Amino acid sequence: MKKLINKPEDVVKESLAGVAAAHGDLVKVHYDPDYIVRADGPVQGKVGVISGGGSGHEPMHGGFVGMGMLDAACPGDVFTSPTPDQMEAATKAVDGGAGVLHIVKNYTGDVMNFEMAAEIAQVGGIEVEAVVTNDDVAVQDSLYTAGRRGVGITVLAEKISGAAAERGDNLKAVADMCRKVNANGRSMGMALTSCTVPAAGKPTFEIGDDEMEIGIGIHGEPGRERMSLKSAREVVDMMAEAIISDLPYKSGDQVIAMVNGMGGTPLIELYLVYNELNRVCSGKGITIARRLVGNLITSLDMAGCSITLLKADAELLQLWDAPVHTPALRWGV
Amino acid sequence: MKKLINKPEDVVKESLAGVAAAHGDLVKVHYDPDYIVRADGPVQGKVGVISGGGSGHEPMHGGFVGMGMLDAACPGDVFTSPTPDQMEAATKAVDGGAGVLHIVKNYTGDVMNFEMAAEIAQVGGIEVEAVVTNDDVAVQDSLYTAGRRGVGITVLAEKISGAAAERGDNLKAVADMCRKVNANGRSMGMALTSCTVPAAGKPTFEIGDDEMEIGIGIHGEPGRERMSLKSAREVVDMMAEAIISDLPYKSGDQVIAMVNGMGGTPLIELYLVYNELNRVCSGKGITIARRLVGNLITSLDMAGCSITLLKADAELLQLWDAPVHTPALRWGV
Repeated sequence: MKKLINKPEDVVKESLAGVAAAHGDLVKVHYDPDYIVRADGPVQGKVGVISGGGSGHEPMHGGFVGMGMLDAACPGDVFTSPTPDQMEAATKAVDGGAGVLHIVKNYTGDVMNFEMAAEIAQVGGIEVEAVVTNDDVAVQDSLYTAGRRGVGITVLAEKISGAAAERGDNLKAVADMCRKVNANGRSMGMALTSCTVPAAGKPTFEIGDDEMEIGIGIHGEPGRERMSLKSAREVVDMMAEAIISDLPYKSGDQVIAMVNGMGGTPLIELYLVYNELNRVCSGKGITIARRLVGNLITSLDMAGCSITLLKADAELLQLWDAPVHTPALRWGV
Repeated sequence: MKKLINKPEDVVKESLAGVAAAHGDLVKVHYDPDYIVRADGPVQGKVGVISGGGSGHEPMHGGFVGMGMLDAACPGDVFTSPTPDQMEAATKAVDGGAGVLHIVKNYTGDVMNFEMAAEIAQVGGIEVEAVVTNDDVAVQDSLYTAGRRGVGITVLAEKISGAAAERGDNLKAVADMCRKVNANGRSMGMALTSCTVPAAGKPTFEIGDDEMEIGIGIHGEPGRERMSLKSAREVVDMMAEAIISDLPYKSGDQVIAMVNGMGGTPLIELYLVYNELNRVCSGKGITIARRLVGNLITSLDMAGCSITLLKADAELLQLWDAPVHTPALRWGV
């Protein structure tokens, strides 16, 4: 295993310490239970927006904590759901009296633990709503998930819900906005290589030098199909077709697009993928109005990419454009 | 070779097309000769700042074109110097009447070609100054370089020189500021794996499963020492010591620090590396006043990292903090 780490069991805590040291102006890291919280929070009168999940997907979620996006993020161990006490503590920490939205990727452990945390927080007098994202069109059920997995749309949902909270929307409105993003978003991923979980010390799955996997999950869960290596053009054609036909996205639609790297794929390739995605969308009369190209929701050191599309009306675009100031995303400030 | 590409010979052009499609509000891509230029340029009366070099180091340099940083970037083929006609055309394209600064990483081909371009541009009536960066403390001479290689400081030099040009400094002042950054900056890199050049189709060098290379160049050129895998703590101790003792950086110094990923190393590891760097600097009384953590100057899909320190006075920090709006770096706007 080739990683820039010390002991495998210390990876998450030491990486969090790096985030705290680098971004102390934006976020604070609380340990035991672990969560990352806005340095200037809780914001009184504002709906709190939190998320969380296993570590290994950085910058998601901790890199998205800050003005205009998340109020807190709960990092679990690598590819392991955070515990209810983390989520409960984060919920309390961000509560500014207007309630708290939990944005939960659809993985069975995350959903169960966020539900428990919500119940405890509600008993404590904090109003909580939860939205479960499930945008991955690749497979219906998966290794850790009943139903569709929650993947790339979570990044866009955190940005847009955070902007809605920032402008003063109430809890129901922020939650409804998050549901709207999830309902209008679809994603699919692929892998050229496996990732390696530090504690395991060896690749999560075996894959041949001439093979790739289409529809992979962000933990290396099996996808739709193992196949021989294809060109970027063919890869994007397959993924974009699966995404576009699912909602479906139609000629005349405006979308926010994300081309996401899985952690081990360099930017030169991601822009090449974006070029292919732009070709496919243009050919179908779909306009990419905004986009992110980079490593946003990763799978440790996996080589590969995912594509996310979000059908966006004027209000979604306005919330997208609203200022954001987090370690990983920043504009307008 | 596992890459998200079509034909190896089309990688650079197709990736540039992706940049153009994604960031048309910020940059335009000119083909034959290839260069990326500010969409709102040339800015009349402002010193133009350009850079360039082989592709495969994205986001450098094209991702740094925009307000407050570069006016243009010239991408060569992968790991291949751009040609003088690219640099000459870019120089002409950005000239707003106040002259043009060439920021050149110290690689023999880049230096020679930028010199030729400068001569031609000067014959054409454009005042040109050139600053060659040479911040890599790892080795004195290298595979493609006489003297020290120019690496990570180039990113910081482009930001700070761009800010100096933006506030209206004249050509000599912008060039002097760039020289000051280079003189006060030092870097060192390391690799866990090789990169693979698309046209070659196989790893640039062989490295064992239990080996790493300290002091590697950004094209996989040999470094200081091939050694057995070490912990992140030991790796950072070695690199930071080499950097700090070289200038030297002293107790009481303020620095801008960059922890840079080589392209295949995920953010969870880079923040862990930053945590170690922060420990070393704190222990020596060196304050990290600003920092970048991420993939800024990469080596295709190489796993590894580099560290750059820049001793910074109040003016450098002010120029660092000035607004910047490029595809890869954005703040204050």
